[in-house]
Amino acid sequence: MSAKDIWLNKVKWTDDGLVPVIAQDATNGTVLMFAWMNREALKLTSESGEAVYWSRSRKKLWHKGEESGHVQKVKEIRLDCDEDVVLLKVEQIGGIACHTGRNHCFFQKLEKGNWLVVEPILKDPAEIYKK
Amino acid sequence: MSAKDIWLNKVKWTDDGLVPVIAQDATNGTVLMFAWMNREALKLTSESGEAVYWSRSRKKLWHKGEESGHVQKVKEIRLDCDEDVVLLKVEQIGGIACHTGRNHCFFQKLEKGNWLVVEPILKDPAEIYKK
Repeated sequence: MSAKDIWLNKVKWTDDGLVPVIAQDATNGTVLMFAWMNREALKLTSESGEAVYWSRSRKKLWHKGEESGHVQKVKEIRLDCDEDVVLLKVEQIGGIACHTGRNHCFFQKLEKGNWLVVEPILKDPAEIYKK
Repeated sequence: MSAKDIWLNKVKWTDDGLVPVIAQDATNGTVLMFAWMNREALKLTSESGEAVYWSRSRKKLWHKGEESGHVQKVKEIRLDCDEDVVLLKVEQIGGIACHTGRNHCFFQKLEKGNWLVVEPILKDPAEIYKK
């Protein structure tokens, strides 16, 4: 490990070597998404200036936007009081963070015991992810 | 289970019966804290209108602010696309969400390979938690 990576030791990783990450729009404060990073992902995020997560389902590094072009330009990296949660403040390229084609992932709102979809689809996912 | 609790079945709980929760200031968008809920905590949060979490360290329900008075009045409950993360929009009573006496928990900012404390302590924790 290089001396310049010592900051990564401050993070309290889970037994699986991960840390939960909240991505927030740096401009308007919208919570865009929630994901996980391992040490390599956080290092790459810091070095490249673009969010790189760890996909738990695919078990591989996931450069957000690698398929869709909807990368996240990182403006700030924050750590919480317990040093086990990361907050990224980002510029969301394309204005779409969610794979459903919405601005953000938290589009279901509880209303009188029902989950209502309250955010519009900005672009058809079939268009976003077409080969 | 009562019929009015069916909305809780939509949440994809972890193997431990938990869901990660992001608490955000409903007014200015600040991400205040990150915690976990179990089914009972989310039910109580919805019914009482105040955030109730599951403390993984103490293994018990944790009515946020029960000691400090810094309760969180819940304005919105949101669920993400994968239905495994909850976002709470809250009014943070006392303006202090963090046990360190700060407005929020994400007060450490990465700057050139160092974590800098960039948010002020608003109230001495010894004052907040005195018996």
